[in-house]
Amino acid sequence: MQLSIVLFDGFTALDVVGGYEVLRNVPGVQVQFVAAASGIVASDSGALGMMAASAFAQAAPADILYVPGGPGVPGALDDAALLDYVARSAARAAWMFGVCNGVEILGAAGLLKGRSVTTNMFSRNAVAAYGATVLRERYVRDGQLVTGAGVSSSIDAALYLAGLIAGDTVARTIQLGIEYYPAPPHGNGCPDEQPLPIRAIVGMIEKTREKRLAARHIPYPHVTSGAGSKPATPDT
Amino acid sequence: MQLSIVLFDGFTALDVVGGYEVLRNVPGVQVQFVAAASGIVASDSGALGMMAASAFAQAAPADILYVPGGPGVPGALDDAALLDYVARSAARAAWMFGVCNGVEILGAAGLLKGRSVTTNMFSRNAVAAYGATVLRERYVRDGQLVTGAGVSSSIDAALYLAGLIAGDTVARTIQLGIEYYPAPPHGNGCPDEQPLPIRAIVGMIEKTREKRLAARHIPYPHVTSGAGSKPATPDT
Repeated sequence: MQLSIVLFDGFTALDVVGGYEVLRNVPGVQVQFVAAASGIVASDSGALGMMAASAFAQAAPADILYVPGGPGVPGALDDAALLDYVARSAARAAWMFGVCNGVEILGAAGLLKGRSVTTNMFSRNAVAAYGATVLRERYVRDGQLVTGAGVSSSIDAALYLAGLIAGDTVARTIQLGIEYYPAPPHGNGCPDEQPLPIRAIVGMIEKTREKRLAARHIPYPHVTSGAGSKPATPDT
Repeated sequence: MQLSIVLFDGFTALDVVGGYEVLRNVPGVQVQFVAAASGIVASDSGALGMMAASAFAQAAPADILYVPGGPGVPGALDDAALLDYVARSAARAAWMFGVCNGVEILGAAGLLKGRSVTTNMFSRNAVAAYGATVLRERYVRDGQLVTGAGVSSSIDAALYLAGLIAGDTVARTIQLGIEYYPAPPHGNGCPDEQPLPIRAIVGMIEKTREKRLAARHIPYPHVTSGAGSKPATPDT
């Protein structure tokens, strides 16, 4: 089973790695990281770069299509080649997996009309605008589509998907293998349950994410978002 | 504050990214990924490659030294340049952070004598052999040293460390920012609490990790473990 994880400039690393570390341990799953071009793709911090071995055009067909989120999502939404890859892959994949505001990418690729999903707390309206019903859950399944809420929820959502693919015993063994018996040191409330001032702080930080993206220092050569992927200006 | 995350051939990605996603959000923290040479370092699966922008010799001095684990740890334990970098960095760092069997690396660098730590369930004896007291906890602090148990515990341990560095309000805000209100779909027991057959299965899988490492396909040029770092055979 081919798991294809889509990378784009400004992805959030835990959106990717939380689910990757689970799904790559499902027996029979092979992983490929895909992007506009093969090369290193910069995460939102810039400090973390991850290798995409395959460009969209060369990637093996996906059985599981994995779309993470991050402050780079607005750029990805303007990237015709990325949206085309997602739409083409989804048409044949057995499973689609979206995390955080990466769920918006699935919407922009035309895959969310009439579907039930979750997403991060700041993307609910944007996702609903694609015709989806947004549930305030940590992970949601609708047919072949599994979505996770924010960032770290990629672990829970992927463990759920692993159970759907390979059964509960396999999923439970993977959960033990990554020693996932979480103990958050600062309570276990979801953002919606926090006092208003705390939610306001988180929201303010969230709003600066795109500004920080533009200002980041990236200390290695990297694949830029939408490289060669936006339609060229017509000659005529 | 300079956070230095050590990469080596065969690291486990969630060991790295769980803590990275927390600590990079601590105000004032700058992140660098360091390895034997600058370039892409292959994770245990091979499919995931992560960029090390700095070689050990060129890295900025670390205020927080972060050592992850993975099936590549036995190779790292033989890597004189890596152990030297860890020992030198620890001598000046304000904090040391070790996860999973990466804690063995701290031991091999001579940093664990008389210290209390945790580690993953399969590394307890190896870590104790370095003179440490191993506690069966998700994260442990001993002075300037914070350690986490297996893989996903890097998130909890880093949130705890973030609280020590920047206070509980900052740590709690980061926890909300990564939407960490976990809901493991397959129970929340730690490996020690599992029925013996399940523990046996996890242990058997664990034992194959090094074999799988040798057999993996790495689809990009990468920094090999200990490149140029083992002491050359003396001429005399």
